[in-house]
Amino acid sequence: MFMAEQRGCYSYTIEPRDIDQTHRVTYVALGDYILQAAGEDADRNGFGVRNLNCDNCSWVLSRMAMALERRPEQYEQIVVRTWVNEVSRLMTTRNMVITGEHGRPVGAVVTQWAMIDLDKRTPLDIRTHLDYDRAVVEEPSPIDKPVRIPQIQPAVEARHRVVYSDIDFNGHTNSLKYWEWMFDMLPLSDLTDRLLTRIDVNYHHEALYGQELILCCDEAPNPRFEIHDEAGITLCRAALTWK
Amino acid sequence: MFMAEQRGCYSYTIEPRDIDQTHRVTYVALGDYILQAAGEDADRNGFGVRNLNCDNCSWVLSRMAMALERRPEQYEQIVVRTWVNEVSRLMTTRNMVITGEHGRPVGAVVTQWAMIDLDKRTPLDIRTHLDYDRAVVEEPSPIDKPVRIPQIQPAVEARHRVVYSDIDFNGHTNSLKYWEWMFDMLPLSDLTDRLLTRIDVNYHHEALYGQELILCCDEAPNPRFEIHDEAGITLCRAALTWK
Repeated sequence: MFMAEQRGCYSYTIEPRDIDQTHRVTYVALGDYILQAAGEDADRNGFGVRNLNCDNCSWVLSRMAMALERRPEQYEQIVVRTWVNEVSRLMTTRNMVITGEHGRPVGAVVTQWAMIDLDKRTPLDIRTHLDYDRAVVEEPSPIDKPVRIPQIQPAVEARHRVVYSDIDFNGHTNSLKYWEWMFDMLPLSDLTDRLLTRIDVNYHHEALYGQELILCCDEAPNPRFEIHDEAGITLCRAALTWK
Repeated sequence: MFMAEQRGCYSYTIEPRDIDQTHRVTYVALGDYILQAAGEDADRNGFGVRNLNCDNCSWVLSRMAMALERRPEQYEQIVVRTWVNEVSRLMTTRNMVITGEHGRPVGAVVTQWAMIDLDKRTPLDIRTHLDYDRAVVEEPSPIDKPVRIPQIQPAVEARHRVVYSDIDFNGHTNSLKYWEWMFDMLPLSDLTDRLLTRIDVNYHHEALYGQELILCCDEAPNPRFEIHDEAGITLCRAALTWK
C-alpha cells in the first residue's frame, strides 16, 4: 500500500477480534493500534523500548487525547501516520493522524511521553538521548493537546482488583486497561449507538498486580472518570465527549 | 516465509502486547492466534464466518485441547498449520500444529466445532454445506482429542458480571475470555514460573452481556474449573495440567 510505505506510516487491518457488535472497531482496539504505531515508529528510529531497555530506561505515557470522526469497520485497513514534533527536558509530544480506506478520515491523536529510569522510577532528560533530535518534525499537532483533568465529584463507584490479564510485559497495567475499565462502567447504548468524539486521558501512576482500585465516574452527559487506589492516590483521570 | 506460503499455514509475530512479564506469549494470546488461524483458514476455504453469516449461520467452538512444549518469546514468529480431518453431521474437528522460529516445536491443538442457525440457535448439519468435504485432509489429530470434563467440587469461587469488553462481534463472550477469567484466579507464580502442558476446555453455553457468572476452581495441583450462571447452568469447564 502506498501510504504504508511512507516514513512514519503504519497500516493495520481491523480484525474480527477488534470489533464490537456494531462491527466497528472498539475504542480500546483503536487505541492499541495507535500505541503500536508509536512503538513501531520509536523502534524504527532507534529509540524504541527495545533500545531503551538496554540502557535500563523506558517510555511512560503521560497524557493522551484522541478525536474521532468515525469508527472504522471490520476488515477496513487503517493507516496511522505518526511524528514527533516537540521535545523538552522531561516530555515529548507524538502525534498521529488516522485515515481509513480510500483516505477517509478517522481521527487524530496527541500523546505526551516521559522517559524513566526503570530501577529508580525517576524521569530522565530526553534531550540527552543522542538520536532523539533528528526525529523531530516541524509539523504542528493535528488537534488540541490533551488537557489537564481536575479532581472529579464521583456519582458512581466500582472496585477492581488488578489481575494477571491486566498486566503488561513491564508488570504494570497497560495504558488501555484504564480505558477498558472506564468504558465497562458506561451504559451499553453509549458504546454502540453514540460516537466518542474526543477522549482526554491523564496517566498519573501505574497500577500493580493485586492492587485494589476504585473507579469513579461523575455521570455528566460527557462523563469524567478517576481511578485511584485505596490510599486515595490518583492513578488516572479521563474526560469523554459524546456525540 | 516458506512455511507461511504452504496451504493451511498462517504465521504471526508475538507482539509486545501478547506477552507477560516473562516476555513469553500468554496462553490467551496464543489461543487467540490459534482461533485466528482457524478463522482465516475457514475463510480461505469458503466456509468462514463471513460466508456463513450470509446464510444466517455461524461456527460455534464446542471443545478445545492445547498441548504445549514451551511458550514462544517476544518477537518470535510462529506458524500455525491447520487442517480439518473429521466431519460428522453435527461436529467437525480442526487440528493445529504450532512451530516457532527455526522450526522449533511449540505445541498442538485439537478443536471441535458445531455449526448453528443464528436465529434459532439450533445446530445445523455440516455435511449439507457443499464446500466442506473437499477441505477434509487425511491426517490424524496431533494430540488426544479434548476430553469431556465432569462436574467439579469447587474449593474457590469468584463472581464476574459480563461487561462490554467481554463481548465479541456476535454480542457473546469470546471463547478466550473464559481462559482469561480462569487464569486470573490462579496464583501469579503458576502463570510465570510453570508451564501449562495441556488445557482441555468444554464450551457449553455462551455468556451474554450483563449476566452474573460464578467462577469455580477445585484447587487440585492440576486444577479444574467450572463457570456457571446464577441458575446453575454450566457455561464452560476446563482442566489444566501444569509442569
